Amino acid sequence: MRYRHVIDSCRAETIGDAGLDDVELEARLAGCAAGLTTLRRQQVDGSLPLLRLPARRDDLGELQTIAADWRRRFGRVVLLGTGGSSLGARALAALAPPGGPELIVLDNLDPDGFGAFASGQPLDRTGLLIVSKSGGTAETLSQALVCLPALQAAIGQAALSRQVLAVVEPGNSALRQLAAAYRLPVLAHDPGVGGRFSVLSLVGLLPALLLGLDAAKVRDGAAEVLDQALAATRPAEVPAAVGAALAVALAERRGIAEAVLLPYVGRLETFALWYCQLWAESLGKAGHGITPVRALGPVDQHSQLQLYLDGPANKLFTLITLPMRGSGPLVPEAEARRLGLDYLAGRRIGDLVAAMQRATAETLAKRGRPVRRIELERLDEATLGALLMHFMLETILAAHLLKIDPYDQPAVEEGKVLARCYLAQMAAVG
Amino acid sequence: MRYRHVIDSCRAETIGDAGLDDVELEARLAGCAAGLTTLRRQQVDGSLPLLRLPARRDDLGELQTIAADWRRRFGRVVLLGTGGSSLGARALAALAPPGGPELIVLDNLDPDGFGAFASGQPLDRTGLLIVSKSGGTAETLSQALVCLPALQAAIGQAALSRQVLAVVEPGNSALRQLAAAYRLPVLAHDPGVGGRFSVLSLVGLLPALLLGLDAAKVRDGAAEVLDQALAATRPAEVPAAVGAALAVALAERRGIAEAVLLPYVGRLETFALWYCQLWAESLGKAGHGITPVRALGPVDQHSQLQLYLDGPANKLFTLITLPMRGSGPLVPEAEARRLGLDYLAGRRIGDLVAAMQRATAETLAKRGRPVRRIELERLDEATLGALLMHFMLETILAAHLLKIDPYDQPAVEEGKVLARCYLAQMAAVG
Repeated sequence: MRYRHVIDSCRAETIGDAGLDDVELEARLAGCAAGLTTLRRQQVDGSLPLLRLPARRDDLGELQTIAADWRRRFGRVVLLGTGGSSLGARALAALAPPGGPELIVLDNLDPDGFGAFASGQPLDRTGLLIVSKSGGTAETLSQALVCLPALQAAIGQAALSRQVLAVVEPGNSALRQLAAAYRLPVLAHDPGVGGRFSVLSLVGLLPALLLGLDAAKVRDGAAEVLDQALAATRPAEVPAAVGAALAVALAERRGIAEAVLLPYVGRLETFALWYCQLWAESLGKAGHGITPVRALGPVDQHSQLQLYLDGPANKLFTLITLPMRGSGPLVPEAEARRLGLDYLAGRRIGDLVAAMQRATAETLAKRGRPVRRIELERLDEATLGALLMHFMLETILAAHLLKIDPYDQPAVEEGKVLARCYLAQMAAVG
Repeated sequence: MRYRHVIDSCRAETIGDAGLDDVELEARLAGCAAGLTTLRRQQVDGSLPLLRLPARRDDLGELQTIAADWRRRFGRVVLLGTGGSSLGARALAALAPPGGPELIVLDNLDPDGFGAFASGQPLDRTGLLIVSKSGGTAETLSQALVCLPALQAAIGQAALSRQVLAVVEPGNSALRQLAAAYRLPVLAHDPGVGGRFSVLSLVGLLPALLLGLDAAKVRDGAAEVLDQALAATRPAEVPAAVGAALAVALAERRGIAEAVLLPYVGRLETFALWYCQLWAESLGKAGHGITPVRALGPVDQHSQLQLYLDGPANKLFTLITLPMRGSGPLVPEAEARRLGLDYLAGRRIGDLVAAMQRATAETLAKRGRPVRRIELERLDEATLGALLMHFMLETILAAHLLKIDPYDQPAVEEGKVLARCYLAQMAAVG
């Protein structure tokens, strides 16, 4: 495995009454056995296409060809897409090697938010990727309706067809029609892969390839985690099952209502955003749900740690760490000593971060707060693929334990209808 | 006032049992009267220097001179500082007009995080601002010990003294000694203004001036809010007191454990980060604390809204809105109609965001979730100053109601000691 899942501060034997006893944890782990059985069946019968993605390679050739062409022609790529249509790309983009095109993600609709499109690189060096699974996302469509005429006017229709690409599921939709009207090529979003589970499909991997990442390695890492989970004979051997059991048992038995994701790795800041959607939208229903809170170490030691240590004991902490000892720039020894900073003298920045992450984990545990750690071997495409699959499985298994459907989001429809109604009223009054 | 504080969905008469009755709210409002009396006394006797900052102008001349000089000489400014030493600057920086220097904030220690310093603009066009109130922050000191020799080697000692500035409180400290060793000018951080309350001091305003913002206007906006609060005869007239009373009453009487800040304004994303430190570190102690959760509209409708609407009813929502109708690019009417998107036809992007924020507020209220709105007139320096002061007062008054000290952060010391101890052990083993 490319990571170790360590839970030494979640049991009663480590943190006292705030922790779980073996019976509580075992009960949830046993529940995960049924969840894993369902997943095994779904992989075999193909009813959950997500589970077939890691092993697929047949679809990567076309994406690689597009990416090679775009990388040669464009200095930047603008992505129109929100929620599951952009968060996976943002998580992967953090690993982009230098020298490739710049990725600009316009995921938030804002009247002031179009400056990034118009400024910077010239439009004839700009690729535009429009992603909406349903093809009916109001934010993405309105952005596209603003950007396409501007781009068409700047570069002409012939170039437009070669600089823009739409990703949308098959069947009629506004985005399909828009693509037809502007003669834009379209790639199919798999209708069986929900937005927040789509990072291993072209939705995440085409942007990754555009940035120069190895998409096959992302899937390799995901495949390892999936294969290990589905081959295991006991849920206790499956890190995602252990994580799901922990989170659900702590929520139900100890009132742990918040899941704090605290990577000590700057490049995982956008991964935490991706996780927050996955966890919130999949589990937040029917009164259930554990609020995902994204943090980042060490910086949030100076912002959130006081609350974490001394506030309500209602949080499960997931630290993500990298082996950092000996990495990064050196703090000059003589100068540090001259300032009385012996503890910094001759240390590398990675040594400091390593000491801080260890101190934070131990201080939280000493205060009786449940902590688990995900220790990465390194941070590359395969490891990120493994992390992505770990958290998708953990979320699905947690939903199974809570007896809820992780794949729908029924509550958000009402607000969409209401927003359209208010827009119609605005139109009526002028 | 530059904003309206609207609480129409927090009372039992609007959202049923999840809301507060008048007795519960009145009790906390009455408690705020004592808090406001304390603030009045502290302003008069000078014991809380924060309260004197909004009216000050005597200190701005020197900062303006430095800023004018740096803006002429530098294409970018790198800020080394974490927590309260950087979050205020990041909140203000979102309003920076185009054309000024780029601000790069290295607030998170990461072995891979120095690339932004070394690349981009040439070092002789780079200003370096090193901010640590105590002068002993390990992250900032180690970053400075890495960056200063590199900068000195690149530009020479004479230039170094003109390109670097340290901000630290008076008295001996490692940062003071470092500044002396490198002959760097030093500006004094007021020891009576805590980091997370320092945005209206030079800690926030020097970066703001460097970016071309009007610091006096930031203070004007803050002064209006402070003066109104301290002059009011009843707490119910003070938005910050109403907000504090709401948050504390909902926490104590309805189990509301999370405060979701949901601006529908892209440029307030970093303001939400600033707020999260203020609220978490000031109130998270002795088992108290309401977890701040930062969100952003409309994008988080596609990520967090499902949880907010259908998950546990343990959140207070604070929407921040701008009048957006009629602003932003136009969605072309004929094309939208051709796609069957009548609701978008001829609308501006601002219309959409306005409809979405209204729909979100109403949908949350219909589900019995407490919502308040802060309606800004516009977004400029004075409005942001007003918002900053609003939330500082709200936090102080909430702490008063909870009978805790908003100005300390006692729990984080233990982790710092432990981290130094681990670093020392690393040194011992090599």
